[in-house]
Amino acid sequence: MRLAELSGRSGVPTATIKYYLREGLLPPGERVTATQAEYGEEHVRRLGLVRALIQVGRVPVATAKEVLHAIEDASLPHDARLGIAVESLPPPRGSAVDPEVLEAAGGRVAELRNALGWDHATTSVGQEMLVTAVATLMQLGYPCSAEHLMPYARLAGELAAHDMDLVEGFETPTTQLEAAVALTVLYEPVLLGLRRMAHAEEATRRYGKGVGTRS
Amino acid sequence: MRLAELSGRSGVPTATIKYYLREGLLPPGERVTATQAEYGEEHVRRLGLVRALIQVGRVPVATAKEVLHAIEDASLPHDARLGIAVESLPPPRGSAVDPEVLEAAGGRVAELRNALGWDHATTSVGQEMLVTAVATLMQLGYPCSAEHLMPYARLAGELAAHDMDLVEGFETPTTQLEAAVALTVLYEPVLLGLRRMAHAEEATRRYGKGVGTRS
Repeated sequence: MRLAELSGRSGVPTATIKYYLREGLLPPGERVTATQAEYGEEHVRRLGLVRALIQVGRVPVATAKEVLHAIEDASLPHDARLGIAVESLPPPRGSAVDPEVLEAAGGRVAELRNALGWDHATTSVGQEMLVTAVATLMQLGYPCSAEHLMPYARLAGELAAHDMDLVEGFETPTTQLEAAVALTVLYEPVLLGLRRMAHAEEATRRYGKGVGTRS
Repeated sequence: MRLAELSGRSGVPTATIKYYLREGLLPPGERVTATQAEYGEEHVRRLGLVRALIQVGRVPVATAKEVLHAIEDASLPHDARLGIAVESLPPPRGSAVDPEVLEAAGGRVAELRNALGWDHATTSVGQEMLVTAVATLMQLGYPCSAEHLMPYARLAGELAAHDMDLVEGFETPTTQLEAAVALTVLYEPVLLGLRRMAHAEEATRRYGKGVGTRS
């Protein structure tokens, strides 16, 4: 397909596609004339991933490039490519916390990891997010002991298994890696939206009608 | 306690506390002299909630005020206060999607709700977040059928029950409502952090060492 059709199929404006091509976020098409190139299904798919990273994940262009290069680097084993790609995704948001509280929170997360037998990925974006979140809860005096966190951790483990099953439904190592990155980012708002909906349902069940309808 | 101690206990600078007092985000202390007031435990707790809303939840000050007023409005039933307070929390982030895709996504979410028997809260922040997220997945060609979403929805239901149990551990209706708002916001990064950590664990289990260690 030509550039115009690629734009129509993907919903990405042609100027944006040209920018992605120049930046190396999208591999070049197959040149057919001096001014025209032919694009394939892999370009439609890749555009989806680039948009997921940049528009939904708010990943800087330079980081998106690193992620995509890791995905394509056939010299690395599959697990290392996945590790680099997923670890390059920045955490969704931060918050300012006291360094002492941060250290205490780190200890609590280590305790949780021990209790769960999670002994890999000792430095990771996920761990940083969790430590910061726990430090914020501690600082504000809300419950967040390892015991409190445990049921959430068990559910997160079940979620991760579902996520991996979904990823393994993709055919090739490259599409699996692309899906792992895209679904890490894209399923975050799915999960948060479902949790808030479930809150409204659960509250209605426990306390009666009126919650979330706001009439 | 005096203002300086309230600042020390809560970690909020005195200038910020004075701003919150002026804006009505924090109830006034008990005046003891012409220039000094006495603050209590309820001020420490309320400061925690105000920070959760404004710093972590990125809620505008005007919205935070509405939330806090709903929490304190004893003329409303408990469930209505909870509904107004939680519904005032804005979704964490948005993304631009095609209106037609958005409509299709709305239909898919309705299908999911039917399958789950979730028949309350037809308009809610959570639902908007989910519809937008599903529309993004559809537009990018990633799996997000009602069938795919179902296991996530079931886990979200379990999470919501845990969240409500945690909230019910607080003593009074007002502290319960405060906790419901604070924990809705503060447990979002906990959950996302745990999910990313669980990904690294699950990937290591399935594909071997090297994921997330990035040596």
